[in-house]
Amino acid sequence: MNFSSDTAAPAHPAILEALAEANAGPEPSYGADRWMKLAKQRVEETFETDVEMWLVPSGTAANALSLAVVCPPHGSILCHAEAHIERDERGAPEFYTGGAKLSLLPGANGKIDLGALKRRLDASRPDFVHEVPASALSLSNLTECGTAYTVAEIAERAALAKAHGPVHLDGARFANALASTGATPAEMSWKAGVNLMSFGATKNGALGCEAILLFGETRKLAPDLFARAKRAGHMPPKMRFLAAQMAAYLRDGLWLELARKANASAKKLADILISAGEGCLAYPLDGNEVFVDIEMGIAERLRAAGASFYPWVGKTHRFVCSWATSDAEISAVSRVLAGR
Amino acid sequence: MNFSSDTAAPAHPAILEALAEANAGPEPSYGADRWMKLAKQRVEETFETDVEMWLVPSGTAANALSLAVVCPPHGSILCHAEAHIERDERGAPEFYTGGAKLSLLPGANGKIDLGALKRRLDASRPDFVHEVPASALSLSNLTECGTAYTVAEIAERAALAKAHGPVHLDGARFANALASTGATPAEMSWKAGVNLMSFGATKNGALGCEAILLFGETRKLAPDLFARAKRAGHMPPKMRFLAAQMAAYLRDGLWLELARKANASAKKLADILISAGEGCLAYPLDGNEVFVDIEMGIAERLRAAGASFYPWVGKTHRFVCSWATSDAEISAVSRVLAGR
Amino acid sequence: MNFSSDTAAPAHPAILEALAEANAGPEPSYGADRWMKLAKQRVEETFETDVEMWLVPSGTAANALSLAVVCPPHGSILCHAEAHIERDERGAPEFYTGGAKLSLLPGANGKIDLGALKRRLDASRPDFVHEVPASALSLSNLTECGTAYTVAEIAERAALAKAHGPVHLDGARFANALASTGATPAEMSWKAGVNLMSFGATKNGALGCEAILLFGETRKLAPDLFARAKRAGHMPPKMRFLAAQMAAYLRDGLWLELARKANASAKKLADILISAGEGCLAYPLDGNEVFVDIEMGIAERLRAAGASFYPWVGKTHRFVCSWATSDAEISAVSRVLAGR
Amino acid sequence: MNFSSDTAAPAHPAILEALAEANAGPEPSYGADRWMKLAKQRVEETFETDVEMWLVPSGTAANALSLAVVCPPHGSILCHAEAHIERDERGAPEFYTGGAKLSLLPGANGKIDLGALKRRLDASRPDFVHEVPASALSLSNLTECGTAYTVAEIAERAALAKAHGPVHLDGARFANALASTGATPAEMSWKAGVNLMSFGATKNGALGCEAILLFGETRKLAPDLFARAKRAGHMPPKMRFLAAQMAAYLRDGLWLELARKANASAKKLADILISAGEGCLAYPLDGNEVFVDIEMGIAERLRAAGASFYPWVGKTHRFVCSWATSDAEISAVSRVLAGR
Repeated sequence: MNFSSDTAAPAHPAILEALAEANAGPEPSYGADRWMKLAKQRVEETFETDVEMWLVPSGTAANALSLAVVCPPHGSILCHAEAHIERDERGAPEFYTGGAKLSLLPGANGKIDLGALKRRLDASRPDFVHEVPASALSLSNLTECGTAYTVAEIAERAALAKAHGPVHLDGARFANALASTGATPAEMSWKAGVNLMSFGATKNGALGCEAILLFGETRKLAPDLFARAKRAGHMPPKMRFLAAQMAAYLRDGLWLELARKANASAKKLADILISAGEGCLAYPLDGNEVFVDIEMGIAERLRAAGASFYPWVGKTHRFVCSWATSDAEISAVSRVLAGR
Repeated sequence: MNFSSDTAAPAHPAILEALAEANAGPEPSYGADRWMKLAKQRVEETFETDVEMWLVPSGTAANALSLAVVCPPHGSILCHAEAHIERDERGAPEFYTGGAKLSLLPGANGKIDLGALKRRLDASRPDFVHEVPASALSLSNLTECGTAYTVAEIAERAALAKAHGPVHLDGARFANALASTGATPAEMSWKAGVNLMSFGATKNGALGCEAILLFGETRKLAPDLFARAKRAGHMPPKMRFLAAQMAAYLRDGLWLELARKANASAKKLADILISAGEGCLAYPLDGNEVFVDIEMGIAERLRAAGASFYPWVGKTHRFVCSWATSDAEISAVSRVLAGR
Repeated sequence: MNFSSDTAAPAHPAILEALAEANAGPEPSYGADRWMKLAKQRVEETFETDVEMWLVPSGTAANALSLAVVCPPHGSILCHAEAHIERDERGAPEFYTGGAKLSLLPGANGKIDLGALKRRLDASRPDFVHEVPASALSLSNLTECGTAYTVAEIAERAALAKAHGPVHLDGARFANALASTGATPAEMSWKAGVNLMSFGATKNGALGCEAILLFGETRKLAPDLFARAKRAGHMPPKMRFLAAQMAAYLRDGLWLELARKANASAKKLADILISAGEGCLAYPLDGNEVFVDIEMGIAERLRAAGASFYPWVGKTHRFVCSWATSDAEISAVSRVLAGR
Repeated sequence: MNFSSDTAAPAHPAILEALAEANAGPEPSYGADRWMKLAKQRVEETFETDVEMWLVPSGTAANALSLAVVCPPHGSILCHAEAHIERDERGAPEFYTGGAKLSLLPGANGKIDLGALKRRLDASRPDFVHEVPASALSLSNLTECGTAYTVAEIAERAALAKAHGPVHLDGARFANALASTGATPAEMSWKAGVNLMSFGATKNGALGCEAILLFGETRKLAPDLFARAKRAGHMPPKMRFLAAQMAAYLRDGLWLELARKANASAKKLADILISAGEGCLAYPLDGNEVFVDIEMGIAERLRAAGASFYPWVGKTHRFVCSWATSDAEISAVSRVLAGR
């Protein structure tokens, strides 16, 4: 009954096996290997467009490097007040950009409020030297509340921000968002106005692999991205072991299959928590994260039975399912709640 | 005949297997896992002392993070003019320290000249606000010339620098240096006055794993190190896969065995290149890197036969052996040179 | 009728004359001059304590340098959401600290709400590596709303923050706050728990001079401050011309006299705007800045008559008086409003 | 007999008077004042071209801000090993650029050796991500050895560097270089291939004023320059007092007159030191700085008589004359050396 995080899950066997396959003999270093070519090819097929790409071992690295190539030190990045880049990355965007500012926006269910975004953008005065202007917009899908922006919601926010600067998408749980909305990778990214994104695999079956993807004109910034990655220690010699993960992740739709499984587990778990526990959802359940209000007694009972999950705010608790969540774990929750 | 770099070698099977072993079931994220504990325990046994430790996927990250915790933005790091941190890391130390300066020192065979070090330290005036003072010393063992400092050579340089600030050791090829000199890890590090070090495994059999080790009083800087690692995106969720590598690397002396094998291969290769090729060593051969002056015709012949290696300066070429270098590869070189 | 800002005012003749006095013959550079000694002595008399001090030409420089010596790159500075350091310094604190975060707090009339401060501090978890902890508190007096914290208000906020880190005071209009509250410099600063401050003179009669003052134990950080000042280009050779301004500013109570005059002018102006214009104050009038809600027609009439002042939010307008505001200017406003 | 530095000299009366003139009444802040317009106009007349301009109080600020707008964090700035930006600015370029590297070049008499420059540029590989490429060239005129590059010498170095990035000129003593070589400002700057420069006034009669000048296409970087200046605290409210200095400095050729006087004084002083003291010049005397090898006994005698000057290396001593150096001071040296 480990619902603490999808980062606590192991790697999927197919991805682990890909490492062994990539381990056969010598291979050029620093990204010149054939697995990198294969990974890039699969990403381009998956996203139906040419990309520039780099791979890093953490979402924090992916987000911060992405933002550093599109936001100058004296600019600002608009994001939700609860965004991972603001709350959970120990100031990584500030470090990588050389001191840019995160400009926080409100919005229900972890989604940036459209009106608030418009007002903030309207108030940005790039020619007024005393204030930090809006230089980029960063969206997350899934959001930090486990909800999914629809393609249209991404597109309308991106359309507003476009005139001010690039649009970044934190896709640490991008697969879960696609599985939830039914959108294609292309629809949810560059077709919706996203210029660059962090495309996560770690939370959905990889050992540790996140892709930074540059779309369209933004691809021109690739040399800057690579230089910054190197300079940050994010160009390990044996890049083949990152590349092999991404290649295996995308092979034959494994990534979406795993996300659908995680989402389905979350749905089952939520149903049980709500019905048996008389709880209710704190946020709409769009992916693999269940934010649910339950009585403290119920939470204690679950913990006593060995379940792990995080308290959020007040009565809200977060239960995360992953590709590795088993039916047995979910049944066990059911049994505990039923008092059996 | 791949002598391009020890970074081109695959991972050792035992280390790859350790990943599979670590993949069993859920595990706490961000370094709270049991493999991290095991890795730390083995490091402490290996170095015969308590340490604070963090693991990163590249030597650049290990060096830059290490230096950032001991050198302020307005200080300087003394290092050899050919040091990896100066020549091959795209300014990573400057990025991580917030703009500290590398102060370059000369010295034969990649070793910092003792007299030059003394003069530079004597000239450092921390109270003179206009100049950047000496804040730390960074040594490399093996050096960039493939030579090994002896314990005594490390100790005399560390003794000089001590009054000015911490001593860092770039040990990307530390195993090779130990295999060459016969020193113990403790003798070559903290007992010789080293305060913190980058302890590499990637070039000697890991997929991608370098430990940052803080010794003695320097351990107090661990919270700063962890915060900087997080902020740099070097705290990936599934740290167990880094930790398992380090734990396997140190198990039952695997690491030294691999280094001895690589060094021995380099010795055999050097003998062949020198005798058959009428070459001579550009630098003493202390580890797994052969810097040898050979005629261009010989270099061309080797390349034509499929050997890979790097031209250095003038007639000097670099051939690197690794744990994976086979006798067959070395025999092949011999055959090519013999014209068979 | 220039009420645009106290920064638009000229320098006071006595301060300008001090420059001429300081111009007699050669003088040691970089702060070793006798005017620097004199300025420091007068600051220490004024604040009734020993200080370490540096002088810079702008409040932005004073604030950012101050914050950089007390907040690490991976820390955060708590401040009011409307604070000058957040709104009007183009990210200077982020630049100088190497990417620290400003953590914004609400509060009426530009003063940080005590309850909100307590909650934010309670939520800070320095041991939780993923979040940026509270490292320092920055208060402003006068606030950005022109209001003055009382000594007690400063002290209760400082007392809360103390366990988390140093307390900084942005005193760009410190003289006006003292003139308003009647507190002594010592009472409003170190005696209330302030560890370091920006002590402004530019807006109150200087050409361009702000002092960074370190009190008590914080004085130990002086070498770091001086190194950062030098490195920022804020150690101009002829420091005597900054020092002479500060020395003259504090001589015989000139600074408080000028602040009292500016505050008194603001009071007169406010009375006129309120009575004649049927306006009302948007914030309490504690210093030299009048934030007043007036009808647009009245604002237009004033502008047409040549008055300069800034629109704020909605019907609120900001009128700033300085030491140089004349009774004639205020009478002119009266006449315009009376329709004469 | 103050020959310690031209920074120890007072300001010229005409420049001090200009402050008084600029002090009449209110004036827009932050550079929108009429003195700024006047200063820019005079700079453009002086340099015979349109410029973008900002004013700062120190050469360190001028250099570091200039370099930050033309060199990315992951680039490098080529400069002489003895350059002020390397030796005397406490790492300001590294701070402002976000960690770029200074790449040091040798050369006699403080001038970058042409061959060494060519070799360094040829070795720069912008596409090789591991190394920091050459991004900009910074020359100084006068050099740190007090010598003056001729226009042709500037031009040939700029021509080499052009393909790699912008050319910066540190002109802290630009007036002295012009007075020495007879070149016009335009010839010695943009016509010779300089893209941006630090144009100093402080050492030649100002209280504290250095202009950053952007020429030609580089003018497009002005918004970035202004944002960085603001962010660095180098946009003080009452910019008129910086602007008035520059305007007065350039009025009716005052600046060149003062430089000629300083250079002439240096010539006289050198003649006396060489003949009477049996010394010889360490470097050619091109400006206002005399680097002379003299016996220690002579140095002691001069010091005993109240002369101030700096020991350099070995027997070399530096004597600096300024616009304010009087014939009486030089005669006094003569008398001391003659033993009268």
